[in-house]
Amino acid sequence: MKKAIAVISGGMDSITMLHEYAEKIGLACSFHYGSKHNDKEIPFAIFHSESLGIKHITIPLDFMNKHFKSDLLESGGDIPDGHYKDTLMQKTVVPFRNGIMLSIAAGLAESYGLNEVLIANHFGDHSVYPDCRESFILPMAQAIKAGTYGELLLMSPYVAITKRDIAIKGQKLGLDYSQTWSCYKGQEYHCGTCGTCIERKEALRGFDNTEYV
Amino acid sequence: MKKAIAVISGGMDSITMLHEYAEKIGLACSFHYGSKHNDKEIPFAIFHSESLGIKHITIPLDFMNKHFKSDLLESGGDIPDGHYKDTLMQKTVVPFRNGIMLSIAAGLAESYGLNEVLIANHFGDHSVYPDCRESFILPMAQAIKAGTYGELLLMSPYVAITKRDIAIKGQKLGLDYSQTWSCYKGQEYHCGTCGTCIERKEALRGFDNTEYV
Repeated sequence: MKKAIAVISGGMDSITMLHEYAEKIGLACSFHYGSKHNDKEIPFAIFHSESLGIKHITIPLDFMNKHFKSDLLESGGDIPDGHYKDTLMQKTVVPFRNGIMLSIAAGLAESYGLNEVLIANHFGDHSVYPDCRESFILPMAQAIKAGTYGELLLMSPYVAITKRDIAIKGQKLGLDYSQTWSCYKGQEYHCGTCGTCIERKEALRGFDNTEYV
Repeated sequence: MKKAIAVISGGMDSITMLHEYAEKIGLACSFHYGSKHNDKEIPFAIFHSESLGIKHITIPLDFMNKHFKSDLLESGGDIPDGHYKDTLMQKTVVPFRNGIMLSIAAGLAESYGLNEVLIANHFGDHSVYPDCRESFILPMAQAIKAGTYGELLLMSPYVAITKRDIAIKGQKLGLDYSQTWSCYKGQEYHCGTCGTCIERKEALRGFDNTEYV
């Protein structure tokens, strides 16, 4: 039974989740909030949704690029190079982005008659992104349940596993990760040096069928 | 010290809050989500912000009118007449609207260097709107605190008082409520028969300086 909405970006994590839980996903949504890489990642979100026969919608959030302060955005500074956990990467945080995406997804779910919201935040996100941690996800789940007539469930199936664990899932599912996008710089190819590129490479090390770029 | 962002609609409750807490409000924001009465209420939000010297921004959320199911929206059915507490009024709920507005306000606050989010939900809202109840506000406050670097505070100063109590506050503040808008129908004048008009009339009964329309 199709009962869930999935928040997907077009990156490794959310595309893996989309495939793993496809059977119960009735709607997938992506958010175009003006990041440097939205135009590279969202086409993959649409591609995988279509390949699974799942309806996909893109929600434009132009105000974020205009008003929010983050180097991830077109309006922000350059994307720093270096490891994900470096403090420099904090400049790529888009304030409360997951809160915003989950809230909108909850409203969409209620409107489309769905009762579950799926998001693919994982353990490796926790160090830099406060709105990926369990300390955020748990009260957010309560707020969504209490604040909707359908008492929606928020499910965060990868919250306690790493990106490497997700890559292993992807291997088992036979996913081709070259059909996903990670790099924050949003250029023609993955830069290979920004935090999310380094994290992607580490997660995919040694896997043959998952080209890096 | 200006440290708070206020979510204001242009109705009685949020305009009273704006005046009561003006000293600490650095930014006021309204959301244009495609309701039938947005174009009537938001000009009052701008008017009062300007009169207090508070910067105001309007955030467009066009996707809500397009995708969300609610008779409050332009895309929905007619606004029902009758008392606010009638089950018919449930059709005017915009799913998880407060969750969406508060999440965006939290992201704005973090971007503008503010550390408090104010919203004017009150006790009378509780019966119809699940995202006005304390059972929603409390976990939402936790989620906002845990999900932001600034550990933002969510303040809901009117959560335990009624609209009548708010009207009494407004009297003491010398507010002219004819410079606010409530009616969900969004026509030239307040209709006087929809749930929010009835509630407004009940709250203002006997007050001379607060014309109903």
